[in-house]
Amino acid sequence: MAFQKAPIKGMNDFLPAQMRLREKLISQIKQTYRAYGFEQIETPMMEHIENLAGSDGGENEKLIFKVLKRGRDLERALDKGPDALAEYGMRYDLTVPLSRYYAANKEHLPQPFKALQIGNVWRADKPQAGRFRQFTQCDIDILGDDSNLVEIELISATADMLWKIFEGTPATGITIHVNDRRILRAVALDAGIPEEGVGDALIVLDKMDKVGLEGVEKELLAGGMDEAVVQRYLASYRDVEAGDCSEFCGNLNPEYFDGAAATNLDEIISCVRGMVEGNITIEFDPTLVRGMGYYTGPIFEVTLDGFGFSIAGGGRYDGMIGKFSGEAAPAAGFSIGFERIVTVLNDFGQGSEPIGEGATAFLVSKKASAEKKIETLNAARELRASGKVASVQVMRKNVKRQIDALEAEGFEEFIRVYDD
Amino acid sequence: MAFQKAPIKGMNDFLPAQMRLREKLISQIKQTYRAYGFEQIETPMMEHIENLAGSDGGENEKLIFKVLKRGRDLERALDKGPDALAEYGMRYDLTVPLSRYYAANKEHLPQPFKALQIGNVWRADKPQAGRFRQFTQCDIDILGDDSNLVEIELISATADMLWKIFEGTPATGITIHVNDRRILRAVALDAGIPEEGVGDALIVLDKMDKVGLEGVEKELLAGGMDEAVVQRYLASYRDVEAGDCSEFCGNLNPEYFDGAAATNLDEIISCVRGMVEGNITIEFDPTLVRGMGYYTGPIFEVTLDGFGFSIAGGGRYDGMIGKFSGEAAPAAGFSIGFERIVTVLNDFGQGSEPIGEGATAFLVSKKASAEKKIETLNAARELRASGKVASVQVMRKNVKRQIDALEAEGFEEFIRVYDD
Repeated sequence: MAFQKAPIKGMNDFLPAQMRLREKLISQIKQTYRAYGFEQIETPMMEHIENLAGSDGGENEKLIFKVLKRGRDLERALDKGPDALAEYGMRYDLTVPLSRYYAANKEHLPQPFKALQIGNVWRADKPQAGRFRQFTQCDIDILGDDSNLVEIELISATADMLWKIFEGTPATGITIHVNDRRILRAVALDAGIPEEGVGDALIVLDKMDKVGLEGVEKELLAGGMDEAVVQRYLASYRDVEAGDCSEFCGNLNPEYFDGAAATNLDEIISCVRGMVEGNITIEFDPTLVRGMGYYTGPIFEVTLDGFGFSIAGGGRYDGMIGKFSGEAAPAAGFSIGFERIVTVLNDFGQGSEPIGEGATAFLVSKKASAEKKIETLNAARELRASGKVASVQVMRKNVKRQIDALEAEGFEEFIRVYDD
Repeated sequence: MAFQKAPIKGMNDFLPAQMRLREKLISQIKQTYRAYGFEQIETPMMEHIENLAGSDGGENEKLIFKVLKRGRDLERALDKGPDALAEYGMRYDLTVPLSRYYAANKEHLPQPFKALQIGNVWRADKPQAGRFRQFTQCDIDILGDDSNLVEIELISATADMLWKIFEGTPATGITIHVNDRRILRAVALDAGIPEEGVGDALIVLDKMDKVGLEGVEKELLAGGMDEAVVQRYLASYRDVEAGDCSEFCGNLNPEYFDGAAATNLDEIISCVRGMVEGNITIEFDPTLVRGMGYYTGPIFEVTLDGFGFSIAGGGRYDGMIGKFSGEAAPAAGFSIGFERIVTVLNDFGQGSEPIGEGATAFLVSKKASAEKKIETLNAARELRASGKVASVQVMRKNVKRQIDALEAEGFEEFIRVYDD
């Protein structure tokens, strides 16, 4: 077997300068979220395959990297076909493992519990520009609380954090779009879509921002939906101006909708508006769907003004924890598109941090004696004690090239050490 | 399929207090290593299976978690037996991926390159107390330099870092044990062990600290080694006092050993002695082996005084990078047993950091109006602006229990918010 030099497609090697930007971002994210009282936790990156495969994760469930059984377990499974081969899988998001974690550790956690997670997830997607198969996610979640303070804290903490990152860049502001799964469902039922068809209708509606109202219409008709139903359904979304949610829901049949979800969403919007600072807009967006099937209430997404694409998204998923514990528990979360933020900052020319002011490299001749080395090592130690970066390394034949490369990394001082 | 609440065996859920200790440690480690000029990088946690399976990783190669092929690739592989099923594998250490990384990215890196990596690795070991199947490793490596400044920097940076962590704990000091693969090899050849038997002999010798000289003798004989050879071999290791390496190597047949490795090791030892501060000992240890087959020169291991077990290890592995690039490059590294350090600190009762002085929780009645919520949210915002942790959350029915749990997490102030 030949060795392969390139990383697996869609998975990245990060160079030092890239890492400095990532590390700076992660530390900004942690700092803001910790100030809001979120506590960092970690779950294993591998999960029981049955937990991942039955998690209502939508398309993501098809993209699980599966981990092979071993030894006798594998031998026994070989005759049973491909589905029997895997025992574990790589997590495709941080929400499913968090739900398991909460079910398993609830008695050791405060109630409500405000969790912060930063870690890698994997999706066996077709690799393409900007779409990775291993990537970092940053999630905050609040578990064990059904009040709308949860959504308010999630949204305002995330808006705060994102604005701190993007203030001073070409992005002129951020917009938080909110909707509620119960409203989406009521509109569909009200139009005459049967209960069992709502999920599929939402999957099509979700494409609105890409294919427009006409594209959605075409796809619903192609899917066999009655023309009159399609027209009634889409009438709700035609010429809608972002505005008050209660107003939008005013005409919905009370049989499908009691209005509480709309009042709730309006209160979330007004509370967030009443506290956030910076160029942060929050608005009701009736066509916002979010892909995951596990959402049950309010859902949200953040776009970068002037660029349009989303950089964060989340919502309430009250049903998930019950699948693990047998006991339902309210939950909601916000997930940051970390890799996309990194890409955007790179596009904006936001460089990484330098490695440290006055960073010094001692370049030591190969012929230097042990005494000379000890002297140099102690000079470097003193610099470090004063808070500086100091690196002792061998002097290469092409010392100019060596110094150029070190300068590119941010080193500022160069001390050449010969034998005498 | 039923959902499983417990994490996969041997993989951990980390609670907030555990995470605070881990995060504090990681930040100490980064700080020290960065001051020495090490630059953080990252590689994917998944690797091409052929890179892992042929990497001279010793026992670890048998413990690779393999990732299943997908779609048509999997269908085609099903008939070819279990070995054809995997395309990727989870990395079992950080050294193999680093070698690939260096081969792939050399032209973008300074020479020599000082790398810092912190990340998870996986080993499909039998789970047992203190042995995990997913765990964090912290490695530093210096690539592209064959001088002993590499070993000196690796050892002194690691000793510095470890002493900062353990100073003030019941551990009275740390000891760095050093040896050289070339010396181990020369002793074996000198005793009459044939070249092709050296690897196996070293695997047995490596067990010395567990089974003693007699145990090693028994196993070598059981393996079929000639009694006279065994006696000659073990004579070198009988009643050896840790001392000067050149002295130990003085009697070796010059046919197998030119003495340079010994002079080199003595210089490493004296340079490290000449610079490190704190209760740090460094000594030549002729029976130190290190398991991995890829080591080619000096090897090192750190033990905690008064406890005996090792908390870090490393060495020179000049051959590995050539396997990826076709072009040999010198390399050496030091790997920290992060999980073991965490366990030891826990055993020492070293608690985690509090979440922040004056951390305040606002407990808000479910009946509070939007106006009251906005007022509270803004009070919390002001506290955060002054650098404090402030969390806004719903007031639970059993508010005493809620406050107790928050106090356990480190919250100090509690403000109850009613409707008026």
